[in-house]
Amino acid sequence: MGKKAVELAKKAEKVHQETGVSIGLAPQYCDITALVNTVSLPVFAQHIDFAQAGSYTGHVLPEAVKAAGAVGTLINHSERRLKLADIDAAITRARELDLTTVVCSNNAQVSAAVAALQPDMLAIEPPELIGTGIPVSKAKPEVVSGTVELVRRVNKEVTILCGAGITKGEDVAAAIRLGTAGVLVASGIVKAKDPYTVMREFADAITR
Amino acid sequence: MGKKAVELAKKAEKVHQETGVSIGLAPQYCDITALVNTVSLPVFAQHIDFAQAGSYTGHVLPEAVKAAGAVGTLINHSERRLKLADIDAAITRARELDLTTVVCSNNAQVSAAVAALQPDMLAIEPPELIGTGIPVSKAKPEVVSGTVELVRRVNKEVTILCGAGITKGEDVAAAIRLGTAGVLVASGIVKAKDPYTVMREFADAITR
Amino acid sequence: MGKKAVELAKKAEKVHQETGVSIGLAPQYCDITALVNTVSLPVFAQHIDFAQAGSYTGHVLPEAVKAAGAVGTLINHSERRLKLADIDAAITRARELDLTTVVCSNNAQVSAAVAALQPDMLAIEPPELIGTGIPVSKAKPEVVSGTVELVRRVNKEVTILCGAGITKGEDVAAAIRLGTAGVLVASGIVKAKDPYTVMREFADAITR
Amino acid sequence: MGKKAVELAKKAEKVHQETGVSIGLAPQYCDITALVNTVSLPVFAQHIDFAQAGSYTGHVLPEAVKAAGAVGTLINHSERRLKLADIDAAITRARELDLTTVVCSNNAQVSAAVAALQPDMLAIEPPELIGTGIPVSKAKPEVVSGTVELVRRVNKEVTILCGAGITKGEDVAAAIRLGTAGVLVASGIVKAKDPYTVMREFADAITR
Repeated sequence: MGKKAVELAKKAEKVHQETGVSIGLAPQYCDITALVNTVSLPVFAQHIDFAQAGSYTGHVLPEAVKAAGAVGTLINHSERRLKLADIDAAITRARELDLTTVVCSNNAQVSAAVAALQPDMLAIEPPELIGTGIPVSKAKPEVVSGTVELVRRVNKEVTILCGAGITKGEDVAAAIRLGTAGVLVASGIVKAKDPYTVMREFADAITR
Repeated sequence: MGKKAVELAKKAEKVHQETGVSIGLAPQYCDITALVNTVSLPVFAQHIDFAQAGSYTGHVLPEAVKAAGAVGTLINHSERRLKLADIDAAITRARELDLTTVVCSNNAQVSAAVAALQPDMLAIEPPELIGTGIPVSKAKPEVVSGTVELVRRVNKEVTILCGAGITKGEDVAAAIRLGTAGVLVASGIVKAKDPYTVMREFADAITR
Repeated sequence: MGKKAVELAKKAEKVHQETGVSIGLAPQYCDITALVNTVSLPVFAQHIDFAQAGSYTGHVLPEAVKAAGAVGTLINHSERRLKLADIDAAITRARELDLTTVVCSNNAQVSAAVAALQPDMLAIEPPELIGTGIPVSKAKPEVVSGTVELVRRVNKEVTILCGAGITKGEDVAAAIRLGTAGVLVASGIVKAKDPYTVMREFADAITR
Repeated sequence: MGKKAVELAKKAEKVHQETGVSIGLAPQYCDITALVNTVSLPVFAQHIDFAQAGSYTGHVLPEAVKAAGAVGTLINHSERRLKLADIDAAITRARELDLTTVVCSNNAQVSAAVAALQPDMLAIEPPELIGTGIPVSKAKPEVVSGTVELVRRVNKEVTILCGAGITKGEDVAAAIRLGTAGVLVASGIVKAKDPYTVMREFADAITR
């Protein structure tokens, strides 16, 4: 949050500049503008509400995160699960506002359901591994490969990410080998002693 | 509820016996056992919670509706929308308990997402028509046919129902012509002056 | 659930008949009628929804639990927390239907807030002790006595219960000494090897 | 939102400077910092989540709105109702962070419950009048005066506001006469053709 978010964003930007690997940032809502004003990386909201027009106090308006400079949003993060109909409405609203959608899911079956809703990206994260340091790409490779398989039957175009327990470059390399395009990661970087080095290691695992 | 639910169930049973059309009942939780004890029709719960073992006070346990005699359950009814991950968990749990699942959806896209979760049946009901007497099968035929099309790309086997605004036999006939296997209906029957005649008309529209 | 719920209810009835101590039962919704038909003890729902008239599929209607024979209901159980406005609406609706309300709370301050809503009873249960076997009345006596004190400033008449971790007669005796009128207990009885003996011990602790 | 929020804030600041009446602002989360950087008025969040440490993606962290420059927050707005236990937790967390709390309620009884939780301010807003232009202070004066009476039995110090349907200076004057300290208003100002004039009229009604 705050200054720390800006510092971390600068390190991510450096990794991007050094490696060419695409990196997006998803800070607290209040920090979106600060990051947009500081770094050239794409900034995402962590969630949007599909609020009814005119009665949205306390909700996160898609228009507001757009106005703040976000280019996209996470939807249905494991810590902010949504109703199915609301995921659909959020994706539709985001598309109208030209916001890129990254919808999170918890298993292969749910990933296929998400894929049917036509988001831009989806991120499979088995909740039991989130924050554990046990990488999904190594501990449950069949979940990742199974997700890719089920999703591709429904949707050929969605970009597939995975997450949960990713802390090392080799976890990222495994994720790529299993057919995903990248990783969604929070604690593995935010809680690292040296976030730059971790991000650089992740990026190198993708370019190698 | 209560005695009225039993009376209505008997009329439904009569229509089933006269026409051979399959009819299921979805009463209040408290009335499941009474209906099971009175009529030979399959009884469904209106919802189940996917409760964590041991901490489920106030929730509707799948095991409890099973023990009460229900053979299946509605999931994600328009008046009881669930989180995506919870729909998936409820379907999985119901399957383990051999409960038939009927998952509701609000548009074609969401229906495809539901279909990816492999329920036994799905019921598309545009919320703006529910309870209006404006039949989905006539007012929005493209929603029904579009649902059938999108769903079949994802799932060849799920039984597709439709609902919302169904009050006449011709609405049911239209639903069948559009490719569904039947209707999910509440107010069209419950609020009718003569529910038997309405149900008979519905059944005749299917067998004709 | 089911037959086990009926068996347990009969044991509770026996304890009531032997000791004169008031015992209420709060089973799964589907089991309300079976208990009402079997034992003479008051039966409570575990929760009611304050549903909007006519759009309540999947919800627990106050009228339905009343029709099933319940004389009251738990509201806001720790495993089924409600919005403040919904607690108020549920209490109001229950009062209209002459259903006794037992509203749960998690600390002294929240108990005072509940008391301001004028339920018939309230039950303070620190969530961190629920199901642990560490009795609130002994591990956190100040929470119980503090609750009684704060509640009485706001409401002189509400019956105060406590719960969480109650497994022995001495825990019940401590609860009574701290100024409550009884206990709300689930796992302490349901998971006991010999529920009759535990309930009898609890009852004896009250009458002694 | 965005630039319009900043413009409106400047007009509010002008009214404050001309009249000395206290005015607080509660914009979208993304706009908190922009308003803090532009005007000298106190800025509030529209809501905070009481998030568990470390698992708060998509939630509004109290620390984040504080870091963004907010001095307080609305809690339990009619469009963002919270569970009772979460209102209590949010008030407690806000107090630890020295954030001023303004908790909304929907009737006199619920206001008394809120008052028992010791917020800094509470705002009674009958939901059926919100956004209607029918002022609570004139259409339902007994709700406002009844709230003041019930709240004062429980809490002598909480600042009481009212809202819903406030569009004219006379509505504000009526609110003050009924014992409140001010008004909580959104559409009456945001949707006004000339927000400055409306705010000035409101302020004059308080100082007169």
